[in-house]
Amino acid sequence: MTQITFAKKHIATSLVKKIALYEGINPKLLLSRLKQGVAVIPANKNRSLKKPCGIGLGLRTKVNANIGTSTDKCELRDELRKLDAAVSYGADTVMDLSVGGDLRRIRQKVLAYSPVPVGTVPIYEIAVNAQKKTKNFLKFGWQDALEVLEDQARAGVDFFTIHAGVTRNTVAQLKKSKRLLGIVSRGGAILANWMRYHKKENPFFEYFDRILDIAATYDVTLSLGDGLRPGSLVDATDRAQIAELKVLGVLANRARKRNVQVMIEGPGHVPLDEIKENVFLEKKICHRAPFYVLGPLVTDVAAGYDHITSAIGGALAASFGADFLCYVTPAEHLRHPSIEDVREGVIASRIAAHAADIVKGIKGALRWDRAMSDARRRRDWREQIRLSIDPAKAKLYRASSKPLLSDVCTMCGKYCSIKMMEGCIGNG
Amino acid sequence: MTQITFAKKHIATSLVKKIALYEGINPKLLLSRLKQGVAVIPANKNRSLKKPCGIGLGLRTKVNANIGTSTDKCELRDELRKLDAAVSYGADTVMDLSVGGDLRRIRQKVLAYSPVPVGTVPIYEIAVNAQKKTKNFLKFGWQDALEVLEDQARAGVDFFTIHAGVTRNTVAQLKKSKRLLGIVSRGGAILANWMRYHKKENPFFEYFDRILDIAATYDVTLSLGDGLRPGSLVDATDRAQIAELKVLGVLANRARKRNVQVMIEGPGHVPLDEIKENVFLEKKICHRAPFYVLGPLVTDVAAGYDHITSAIGGALAASFGADFLCYVTPAEHLRHPSIEDVREGVIASRIAAHAADIVKGIKGALRWDRAMSDARRRRDWREQIRLSIDPAKAKLYRASSKPLLSDVCTMCGKYCSIKMMEGCIGNG
Repeated sequence: MTQITFAKKHIATSLVKKIALYEGINPKLLLSRLKQGVAVIPANKNRSLKKPCGIGLGLRTKVNANIGTSTDKCELRDELRKLDAAVSYGADTVMDLSVGGDLRRIRQKVLAYSPVPVGTVPIYEIAVNAQKKTKNFLKFGWQDALEVLEDQARAGVDFFTIHAGVTRNTVAQLKKSKRLLGIVSRGGAILANWMRYHKKENPFFEYFDRILDIAATYDVTLSLGDGLRPGSLVDATDRAQIAELKVLGVLANRARKRNVQVMIEGPGHVPLDEIKENVFLEKKICHRAPFYVLGPLVTDVAAGYDHITSAIGGALAASFGADFLCYVTPAEHLRHPSIEDVREGVIASRIAAHAADIVKGIKGALRWDRAMSDARRRRDWREQIRLSIDPAKAKLYRASSKPLLSDVCTMCGKYCSIKMMEGCIGNG
Repeated sequence: MTQITFAKKHIATSLVKKIALYEGINPKLLLSRLKQGVAVIPANKNRSLKKPCGIGLGLRTKVNANIGTSTDKCELRDELRKLDAAVSYGADTVMDLSVGGDLRRIRQKVLAYSPVPVGTVPIYEIAVNAQKKTKNFLKFGWQDALEVLEDQARAGVDFFTIHAGVTRNTVAQLKKSKRLLGIVSRGGAILANWMRYHKKENPFFEYFDRILDIAATYDVTLSLGDGLRPGSLVDATDRAQIAELKVLGVLANRARKRNVQVMIEGPGHVPLDEIKENVFLEKKICHRAPFYVLGPLVTDVAAGYDHITSAIGGALAASFGADFLCYVTPAEHLRHPSIEDVREGVIASRIAAHAADIVKGIKGALRWDRAMSDARRRRDWREQIRLSIDPAKAKLYRASSKPLLSDVCTMCGKYCSIKMMEGCIGNG
């Protein structure tokens, strides 16, 4: 029984009730969306989530934070601190993307510590296991792959990124296209290499029904990965990307028929004027499955500031209907992120998500802005700080620069426009 | 003779030639745009600019950085360091918004040190002079106002923000509207108070022809200020804002008839889905005069991160045709900005401007992204750093986290997708 099965029987699970209450919507509405597949609840049956969430139509735009070791940076303690930081700054989910160290143990810890849904990209563990056993990360078979999936599902992983759209056919389309950067997805690259090495079809594509068995058993939500996402603005919305999206649309339908919850991952690097069309295409081709976007980054040149380039793209994508934003940190393209990078990434994505929620008409979104503006009108600094998306930073900024008059700030001082207007025409 | 006069006579001044060369366009095209008023060159006749710029249709989106003392923070040296930081990080213009200390002396220094065009909001000096002389910042007459304008123009100020749209009529509309935050513009608030105190029309509106005399004499570009801009998302695009915009449209026409260069200032706080319409309305009502936007901020709740909220809004506004972005720093709503705030504000606005220039089709914009992507393809780290919008930060990030393999980064290490794809299907 997955959340879809329950929804089809009109049974509001405790999760559904909790999420509907949190979102301020009727549980029946949420059930109908789960049934249609336009919303998902990533929550493995084997896990009890302290902070579950729903992702999709009519729900608050959610933010994911990636954590995890790399081959170069491999300290479990650091990753758990990043998990803490991500959750405390408001990430709705985390993905453990570890590829360094004892992946099984790291994942167990992440699952144990995380109050929010945890996602993984199982191909990483599959490849890393092969590397450990055979010194070649490509030496694994489909059975090895399914074993890892089963093991992760049993352990409680709430959602899997599955790069099942990197197929012989879509890779052929990629070869024909004139891409500057071929494959920039780590999972996509592993699978493309595997296919070439073994001269076989992508096992995630070929054995997709077996993956569905596992996902259905544990109610693992599938996040169909975009292994062929553009890695440069000049490659955006190209033939290879769309070819893969079409495959994902077919697979999404197959998942739904098996009552497996499914969402679709999206680009990547996209110019501002192609974002709307990218959201439209995903919704159209993938039957309105929730859209999970990485960025999109609206320029390639801002290394060190890709939390900003992706906040721009993410806000726009979400305003057009993207449901789930994967954060990007200032470290993107440069290094393994630090805890501070995680904090900056989460906040930037939350800003993007919230700006979009205002125009999506999400309950309570505009009310927050109104409350902040009202605190500004009253020059109630304590309240302004409390209402800030990152109260600690707001407090620090104000404390670092004490005004001579306590009811204004050091920017305008005596000439505070809001203060000047009191008794003039009134503010409000 | 202003740039418009020269343009009408088909004379390409050395400034026009320099700017056309820099923008990669035909000087004749620039002349035609200056003549139509769809582009401006803020350059006072009494100044020789090391880094002049053009603002408007078909030109690279420009970024302004505000500097200047406040009544609480008043160190000339700090402001000059901010000027340095702003220019070195790529601000195209600066505005000296000082209201604390010896304003005349500060401005002289800013004009002397700045290689880029300098703007001011003369009402500040007018009010501060009155405060010094009479202990009441409202005790000035229209003659005092014009004297300050003349003095600043003679000193070489390149553009003036003139809040001539805060009139008896538009303030009456404001009173009738149900705004949460009445007037959040410092200049707008001073003038609304002056009008109430003296029971007279706004002197900038009433004596607009005298202002045009001064502007025409020195070729000071007028930036018609939006004193009634919304200060909260819930006030966006309201009756008062549009009423003022209509006044600015009429004044813009009057300026053009006198061959005075003119641009229009815009909001402010605007939800994502009203930005396109705001740009459209400005272009329509103000006869395609260059649009100079402050932000727009797409949410009110991100104090400490308003460089990000305004990068989101600015990118979108510029992609729809806004020409000039006024930076917003992380200090907005909290304190007088530090040098670090200035740096972050300039970079965020430049990211927004560049992301928009890609979709505006500005010459060279996409080429930069292509070059960066190509450096990524080649894993040429030196070149990636060189091409970054802030090479120092990119270098620092990479240096702070040295990879085991020098041709990748610590994020993916051995599993660098780009490296994995070499020899697989090839990248490119």
